[in-house]
Amino acid sequence: MRCEVVAVGTELLLGQIVDTNSAWLGEQLALAGIDCHRHTAVGDNRERMLAAFREALDRSDAVIVTGGLGPTQDDITRDVLAELMGVGMERDEAIAAEIERRFSGRGRAMPANNLRQADVPVGAWTMAEMPGTAPGLVCPVGEPPDQKVVYAVPGVPREMHAMVEGTVLPDLRRRAGAEAVIRSRVLRTWGRSESGLAEVLADEIERLDAEGGPTLAFLASGMEGLKVRITAKGADEAEVAELLADEEARVREIVGPVVFGVDDQTMESVVLDELVAQGLTLATAESLTGGMVGTRLTEVPGSSRAFVGSVVAYDGDVKRDVLGVPDGPVVSEAAVVAMAEGVCPVLGADVSVAVTGVAGPDPQDGVEPGTVWMATNVDGDVEAVRIRFPFDRTLTRQFTVISVLDLLRQRLLARRS
Amino acid sequence: MRCEVVAVGTELLLGQIVDTNSAWLGEQLALAGIDCHRHTAVGDNRERMLAAFREALDRSDAVIVTGGLGPTQDDITRDVLAELMGVGMERDEAIAAEIERRFSGRGRAMPANNLRQADVPVGAWTMAEMPGTAPGLVCPVGEPPDQKVVYAVPGVPREMHAMVEGTVLPDLRRRAGAEAVIRSRVLRTWGRSESGLAEVLADEIERLDAEGGPTLAFLASGMEGLKVRITAKGADEAEVAELLADEEARVREIVGPVVFGVDDQTMESVVLDELVAQGLTLATAESLTGGMVGTRLTEVPGSSRAFVGSVVAYDGDVKRDVLGVPDGPVVSEAAVVAMAEGVCPVLGADVSVAVTGVAGPDPQDGVEPGTVWMATNVDGDVEAVRIRFPFDRTLTRQFTVISVLDLLRQRLLARRS
Repeated sequence: MRCEVVAVGTELLLGQIVDTNSAWLGEQLALAGIDCHRHTAVGDNRERMLAAFREALDRSDAVIVTGGLGPTQDDITRDVLAELMGVGMERDEAIAAEIERRFSGRGRAMPANNLRQADVPVGAWTMAEMPGTAPGLVCPVGEPPDQKVVYAVPGVPREMHAMVEGTVLPDLRRRAGAEAVIRSRVLRTWGRSESGLAEVLADEIERLDAEGGPTLAFLASGMEGLKVRITAKGADEAEVAELLADEEARVREIVGPVVFGVDDQTMESVVLDELVAQGLTLATAESLTGGMVGTRLTEVPGSSRAFVGSVVAYDGDVKRDVLGVPDGPVVSEAAVVAMAEGVCPVLGADVSVAVTGVAGPDPQDGVEPGTVWMATNVDGDVEAVRIRFPFDRTLTRQFTVISVLDLLRQRLLARRS
Repeated sequence: MRCEVVAVGTELLLGQIVDTNSAWLGEQLALAGIDCHRHTAVGDNRERMLAAFREALDRSDAVIVTGGLGPTQDDITRDVLAELMGVGMERDEAIAAEIERRFSGRGRAMPANNLRQADVPVGAWTMAEMPGTAPGLVCPVGEPPDQKVVYAVPGVPREMHAMVEGTVLPDLRRRAGAEAVIRSRVLRTWGRSESGLAEVLADEIERLDAEGGPTLAFLASGMEGLKVRITAKGADEAEVAELLADEEARVREIVGPVVFGVDDQTMESVVLDELVAQGLTLATAESLTGGMVGTRLTEVPGSSRAFVGSVVAYDGDVKRDVLGVPDGPVVSEAAVVAMAEGVCPVLGADVSVAVTGVAGPDPQDGVEPGTVWMATNVDGDVEAVRIRFPFDRTLTRQFTVISVLDLLRQRLLARRS
């Protein structure tokens, strides 16, 4: 089973927006075990869209088209698909009524244009999921047994995701005759390089290859950690769940405590959950990061259960006057320890993290860019480490955030056990 | 002149990375007045790459290929181009020596594989720009007068940008016989919606259309502001510079003081420059944003010239104990005014901004998500405003950051005049 992706929209060709949909679709297809050999982007032009759709169908069994389903005159995916299928269009009255209902539900008058979205090529059917006002279309092309299919979904990511997960992938799996269930689980790690992880897992990957078990893949994701994705295939959900659980346990045993979370768990959410579980409150004292540790923590809804606040001491006087940092170099062990100690009484927190360093691009007081001191203060006991990152200003700050939170995570886990 | 973009890399098809290069190239081509009708992504596969290159060349006069120029066995763009051109490969000894020099300059031994990067299809030439170890290639295909061209550049954005700006675009312009110079300038605005800007500029856009002057385009860019791009075409740099300057003045007169910056100037850099010019220091008092205002300010190198630090008062007790916020609701005018007043003496700053609000997703103490109070404190005079954003947690926080900094910008400009 082979499926291509065609993104429609002149704004994509002009670079006004970046096409993130095709990457997302590529990942979903790979997870579903469906080959995808090409992504294409084409403008809102009848002739060029038709050519792109035809060529993709020549090479593949199925095509997912994103975009061009809106209500304006530019949105011609419906019309081009009718031409490709060699059929006319007919208005789906149930969809038309549904579109009108949605407008009136929000107390808005429906522009007449929107009814165009209820026009469907004869022989196509609409998808059950409809988060917006554009229905997704399933368009059979040609006759069985050589029938192929085009799925048309909106370019709005939220709408596209719902339709692809709800209709397109199940339909593709059914057409592929794939009875198998494929699922994946992501282990998020911090503390080992990608090549280091690949090295310790080399024997396991070889074993899985030889025995035909789940597959492992690595994905460096900046502040989100270095991800290890386990993908397993089985006859049903129960079998796949067991395969994933077994392989997760094996990977965790091999790589050790660098695994900080699973799937959508971020370093921030894991640290906050652990703080709540232990009944502790957290403050941060930040120089280098300018508030980014607090920013990341407060992106998690409900972070106020454990996070009380930060002192961002960018200026040397603030470090001394507010946090009690002694005179002397501000990128130093003495400074970061004083920051971690000082911020707890100032903000009334139980534990703290502190960071100071040189973000660059220039050295500061003779200290090289990328030099970072980090400290954690747990139960009044402060531990500090020095790291030298070989990165630019932005990456140095980002890696500092996840690194210092990981130090706190490890201390909290040790404290609990 | 028509030019397509082909991105090479199986990781693109698998969705492991998002292809931002094609969007950037699309924008550059549009600015250069060169039509681009299709973007294609294809995996690291000889047969499929060759087909994609051939098809793109059939439709267009030129093709830009990104990726596949690295040193590993997967990187086969060079080989496929030689096949497309119907020629063999030869090692460019000058390039080979340069690659070796770069490794030895960093005190590293060069893996033998890297010499593959010095292999060039016979008849192609290498680009002068070489920020990494992969040379860019200009490959003529076919014979004059029907000769077409393929440009091969690395997938690493920094290397790709240098080569496209230095070699590809000038060469494309030369081939197009375009004597005209095309340049653009971006005016960044905050405070009007996209439709509001389009409305006040409607007459001007109509006038430009009728008279054939520069073009205007709008681009909503989140925390980077709402951009108005002016694009002008002229016989030489001097003429284009004058056209841009005239049109900028006209747009500024029409839209008023919502323009905060030009091209790469961010709201943060503009505010910091104005603070430095007036000899003022800045502190922030943040609740809702958790430190994001400070984070954004300190992304600007040299921000320590004006920014001293922040008190992130996420917890109610911190607001009261550290900033002197009175008892009562913490999302209120009284609270935000006290925060803006309190933070200046605590951190020793001349001016301040303060924000408190409900990020969501749930209401807090009966206050709806998206409700934000912002304050600015300049010369001891505090002004506060309430805004209700119709956004989710992430966007509410981001729009709060740029909005409160814009309030400060306007007060600083008023103070100077």
